[in-house]
Order: sequence, then structure tokens, then C-alpha cells
Amino acid sequence: MERITAHYLIETPYKLEDAAAVLAGEQSSGTFVSVPGETEELKARFAAKVENIEELETVSNPSIPGDSNSSSYKRARVSVSWSIENFQYNIPALISTLQGNLYELRQFTGLKLDDFDLPLSYSEKFRGPVFGGKGTKGLAGVEEGRPMIGTIIKPSVGMTPENTAEIVKELLKAGIDFIKDDELMASTANSPFEKRVSLIMKEINKYQDRTGKKAMYAFNISGDLDTLRSNYESILKHDGSCAMISINSVGWAGVKAIADLGELSIHAHRNGWGMLNRHPLLGINFPAYAKLWRLAGVDQLHVNGIRNKFWESDESVIRSIKSCSAEFLDYKDLLPVVSSGQWGGQAFDTYKFTGTTDLLYMAGGGIMAHPSGPGAGVRALKQAWEGAVSGKTLEETAKKYKEFAESVQKFGNKN
Amino acid sequence: MERITAHYLIETPYKLEDAAAVLAGEQSSGTFVSVPGETEELKARFAAKVENIEELETVSNPSIPGDSNSSSYKRARVSVSWSIENFQYNIPALISTLQGNLYELRQFTGLKLDDFDLPLSYSEKFRGPVFGGKGTKGLAGVEEGRPMIGTIIKPSVGMTPENTAEIVKELLKAGIDFIKDDELMASTANSPFEKRVSLIMKEINKYQDRTGKKAMYAFNISGDLDTLRSNYESILKHDGSCAMISINSVGWAGVKAIADLGELSIHAHRNGWGMLNRHPLLGINFPAYAKLWRLAGVDQLHVNGIRNKFWESDESVIRSIKSCSAEFLDYKDLLPVVSSGQWGGQAFDTYKFTGTTDLLYMAGGGIMAHPSGPGAGVRALKQAWEGAVSGKTLEETAKKYKEFAESVQKFGNKN
Repeated sequence: MERITAHYLIETPYKLEDAAAVLAGEQSSGTFVSVPGETEELKARFAAKVENIEELETVSNPSIPGDSNSSSYKRARVSVSWSIENFQYNIPALISTLQGNLYELRQFTGLKLDDFDLPLSYSEKFRGPVFGGKGTKGLAGVEEGRPMIGTIIKPSVGMTPENTAEIVKELLKAGIDFIKDDELMASTANSPFEKRVSLIMKEINKYQDRTGKKAMYAFNISGDLDTLRSNYESILKHDGSCAMISINSVGWAGVKAIADLGELSIHAHRNGWGMLNRHPLLGINFPAYAKLWRLAGVDQLHVNGIRNKFWESDESVIRSIKSCSAEFLDYKDLLPVVSSGQWGGQAFDTYKFTGTTDLLYMAGGGIMAHPSGPGAGVRALKQAWEGAVSGKTLEETAKKYKEFAESVQKFGNKN
Repeated sequence: MERITAHYLIETPYKLEDAAAVLAGEQSSGTFVSVPGETEELKARFAAKVENIEELETVSNPSIPGDSNSSSYKRARVSVSWSIENFQYNIPALISTLQGNLYELRQFTGLKLDDFDLPLSYSEKFRGPVFGGKGTKGLAGVEEGRPMIGTIIKPSVGMTPENTAEIVKELLKAGIDFIKDDELMASTANSPFEKRVSLIMKEINKYQDRTGKKAMYAFNISGDLDTLRSNYESILKHDGSCAMISINSVGWAGVKAIADLGELSIHAHRNGWGMLNRHPLLGINFPAYAKLWRLAGVDQLHVNGIRNKFWESDESVIRSIKSCSAEFLDYKDLLPVVSSGQWGGQAFDTYKFTGTTDLLYMAGGGIMAHPSGPGAGVRALKQAWEGAVSGKTLEETAKKYKEFAESVQKFGNKN
């Protein structure tokens, strides 16, 4: 029978073998005393198996509260597997197995789901991203060899649809590929969703009629299920191409129901991510997280950016970008949404460490606050990427291009 | 205009006022450089306000990675408010505001959402729990003055519907009020959901015909939206009264859509909770968590138990139980689901510290592994609560009741 294998980082004051056995027991048959009906045959078929233990360093202080009357805590990578008979093709049941009560076990003073592997048969039940990274770039008419260039409407909340459409018009003139609502902006008192869609899409459609280029706007459709659906319909009605969802706030089942509709590229915003990932030994790492959302069918997923304004390390960002195009079932790639404090200066390291231009490269202030205006801001970003892809350094690129040189001057001391 | 206030525990190497201002800025208008269109009028209407800062202790090591080149980190309680104009009555947008990118801020080396307050107008948009704690006890015919007594089918996964129905029959004979699927058991290869419902409800309905007592069974309906709905329908078809959902795995929008159906009491299983709560300075505390799920309309919510087998402290468990009946809008109470290593011995402290019997008191091995069988196990639990409510000690209660005395002998050394 096919099996699913999950890979964890753990920390425990106990023998690694014993701690791993507790994890496997709790997540298949366990209770604190043995009960009638728990036969050997059942155990063989449904019990989780510890597949591998790789010991890492030992530390003297526990990372999170648990059984902590010890002076030494061992860390390890542990792989555990389950038969797919345990949950069949039910993803919430899979999540409850891989990420459920095991975080409650006092035998662990650290536990993080790092990654998991599924048998190929899952791809028959879940189609994954409809557009994927390359398909999404195609929808926005982005030529080969460079990332999609995007920006976020700021201020995050407060503007009217008219204000916002005005800014969109300016950004379109500047040659932007992609614009998005902030995750704080769903439907505010002065910016009702459908009116915002209607005014913004009017600008985008007009610009397309004139130039042939259809920029993508990610409207934040987040809400309860009725809201998600009616917002999605509004976007279709006005010929939009993308819907944004705050995936942690809406949840897996709601996101899946919307992605199933299959007509818009789904921009997955992972706000709340820090809560799930920021502690090095608690929660979930991006490779596992990205797979769960790829199963739900999202097309674009936030990954933070190199030298971002947030806490996340470059190493983690690079691993996340690579996860988006890592082989998973027979699925299309995810489009990594690179953002937070980006202005073009980070294009060089982003390309150096990931080797890809299948990215959505987002800059907020980096475009809108460019000294020669938003058009120059967009050009500066494209120049940065042109330089990076052709093997130039930041300095060489700044020498060649005026707008990028201005960016370096204005934003270069930020990171 | 009405405002929403959120209460956080924070830790930061910066001046508390500055750190709080960063949080408020990020969660309303912020970007790393100021941009055109960010007017004073917009700020006044939509900006988040720091309402209160209460300094706590100072520590010398950061709790989670962030700006950590300091030798001192201040902790504080901070309250921040937003106008309801920012999100109106959209709960996922509210979640993204209260629990979103703020966890990414490097200015914090600790950040936990502790609680939040909503204006009463929210109760016009969300009806909250349909049955609530008292209503759920009523559905299961539990008399006043004692908790609902429940158990979990073990082993967690592996048994056939026939096996499970056999155990249910035995538990009904034992006088149980409530039985639930394990969260690992949704629909396995050898226990298809509808067949399990049909065989189990046949036993429950037969027992009801004979005795008038309708025990409640919480069937784990977790899955994608179609699965949730069709499973819910199966329960209705077979005259069940309760559906269980793994709320973190399904997510807010999916749970809300099901709770909206309003015909079954919703048993909210919080597996994954440790990931969100286990670190003292990262994630969310129960009072905030319970409010979000009460808004979705769940009726029962897990709270762990006194001297549980997991990591959670008694203090946190007691606070959680109290949160379930705390005043919130004009909503019905939640039924706190007390479980994990419970056998009756903890009834005394549970009652002493919470003063309520509006609980679902769950024992697994504590019932099934009772030396005189499950019937004696259920009687022992009722005896424990009778003793606790009437002011007796554990020892006095054990002297009075044979079955509880046997429990003390078998499980008393466990906790």
C-alpha cells in the first residue's frame, strides 16, 4: 500500500527512538493505556512507522516548554510514514495527522514539520495549480527571461475606488505587469469591493485596448465563503484575471473551493506566516506549507524577499523560492511572490541564488517613491533584472541605466 | 465610529512606544517609505491607534529571532484599536489585521495575540453558536448539575464500522452521554464515513427507543467543502445530532459555512493548537482563539484538561474553560471539551478552579480500561463529579463509591 512520509525537526530530552515512537503512536493509534480492540493486525495496517532518525546537535536549554527537567536536549531529523489507507485523499485529515496533536506532546521541546512526500496517485484527485507560475506570467503578457514586475497599492487601507483607479492608471502607464490590493484591504467603508473592481478593471481594459498588454490585478477576495464567491464573480464579470486570498485567514477548505473554480489565477497571501514559522523549532517550514497550498490549487505564493524588512533570513527565502518550482506530483510550478522592502537592488542576489526569473518581483515604495516617478520605478526594476540575468553587478548595472542608478541612490542605503 | 481593540503580549529591544507604533503602522497604512496619497485625513480615519501600553518584565535573551543585537528585551501588554470601517464585518479580513504580517516584524522578539473586543453590532451579522454549551448538553439529555460525560473511540484509526458500532453499543449500555471519533479518523479505507454513521446511529437510535436517552456522537466530518457537506447530510439522514470538525485543518471559512447550516451541534477539535499557542510569546492565546471560532458558530471547543498528558499548564486550561462562558457579544456559551489523560481524579480541581459543570468531560482509557468495564468507568466519572460538586474531596468520594475507588486505584498514580 502507498505511504505518505513526513519529515520533522525535533528536540527532546528523551532517547530519540523513544520520542519518535511517541510521535508515531500519538498520530496513529495511541492512548495512555492500552484498550481492547487494539489488535496487532490493526496496528500493522494503520500504525505510523518511524522511517529514519538523523541525530543533530545537543543543546542545554529547551526551545519551547515541555518536559524540561533535563540538562540536555537532542535535536534530530525524523521521518515518519503512514499508509494512505489512514486518510485516503482527505487533505484536512492529512493535515490533522501531519500537523495535529503531535505539537501537544510534552516529550518534545521542539517540533517542526519540514516537508512531506505524497504518492503520485494524489495528482489524480487534486489537479493542483491551474495556471502555475509560467501560466500566470503568460496571463499578464510577461515576456520570457524576466520576472513579472508588480506593486502593492499603498496606503494599505483608506483610499476610495476612484483614488485607487487613479493610481492604477499611473502604474499602467509606467508599464507595470501586476498590481495588488494590500491584505488589509478587503472591502472597507469607503471602498466597496465591486466598485473597486469595476473602476480598476476599466483602466486595465482601456489600457489593454490601446496597447494589447493586459496587466494583472490581484483583488483581495478574502471573506467568508459567500463573499469569496461573489467577489470572484465580480472579477470575472469585469474581465479580471486574478484573485488574492489570505490563505491562513480563510483556511484550506475555503481556498480549495475557490481555486476549484479554475478561471482566475489565485494569488495566495500568507499573512500570519510568522506565527507558523518564525520559531526555528515550532510550526511548519515552507516546503511542507507550499505543498499543502499547491494541493489546494493556488498559483502564486508569498515567499518574502532577500534582505527584506521582516525577520526572515535570506537562506529561508531562497529555500522557499526553490520550493515553488520543486517537483511535486505532476503539478505546475507556483509563482513565488517576492516582496518586502524590495527595490531592485536585491535582484542580483535573488538571481544568483535561485537562477530563476519565474518570479513575481514586488516593490511598493521602490516604485511609487522613485525620484523620477513610478514609470522610472518600473523601468529601474526591469533594468536591475536585465543586469542580473546578463551577469552584471549592481554597480555595472547602475552605470548603464539612469533610472536604476537613481534607485540605488535613493534606496541603496536601506539594504 | 465603533472600534475593535486587540490585546497583545509583546517583547522588543526597542522603546515600547516605538515598537507599538510600528505594529499599528504595519497593520494599517505602513510601507517603508511614505507615498503620495497617504493624507492626514485618511490616516485619521483608517490608522490603527495604540490605546495602552503596560510594561512588564525585562529579559536578557530574545524569545524568538528578530532584531537581537541588544542585551535587554522589554515585555509589555499592548492594546491597539482599529475602526470597524477598515474591515466592516469581514472576519478573514479581521484575522489578517489582528494576526497577519505583524508576526513578521523584526522589531518584535515576541508577539502573541491575547484577546480582542468587538462592538455589539457584530452579533447582528454573526449569530454565533446555535446550541451553545447548555443547548448541546440538552440535546444529549444531560441533567442539570453535572457535566456531559464523554469518550473517544480508540484505537484512533483502524477499526471497521462494525467494530466501532459494537463499542458504541457497549458504551451506551454503560450510560455514556457523548462519544466521538478521533481526529485522525475521517474516512479510512476500512471505515467509510456513511457506513460508520449508519451503523453507529442505528445503535444510538435503538438505545433511545428503549430508554428515551439520545446519546450524542460527534462524527468527524473534516474534509474539503463537498466532503464536509455530504458528511453533514449523512449525519442528518441517520438522525445524528453532532458533527466534529478539525477547525485548524479546515479553516475559518469552511467551518463557518458548515456551522451556518445550523442543524447539528458543532464539535470543534483544535488539533494543531500547540503550533499556535505553545510558545509563550508567539501565536495566539485561547481567549482570542475562542472568540474567532464562536463567531464562526461552533458550539463545543477543546480546552485540554487539568494535569493533562500534554504540555499545557493547568493555569492555561482554567483560563480556557472560563473563556468559553465569558461574555462575548450576546452569544451563547461554548461547551469546553475537557480531555487528555482525564479519569475523574481531576474533577475536583476542575470544579474547584472553574465552578462550572457546563463541560464535556472526556475520558478515553479512563472509561474503556476501567477494571470493572466501561459501565463502571462511566459511573466512576459521574461519581467523581457528584463528589466534586457536593464539596467532597477525592478521598471522601473514593470512600463513598466503589467504582470511583477502583479508578483511583488504577489511574491514581498517573496524575
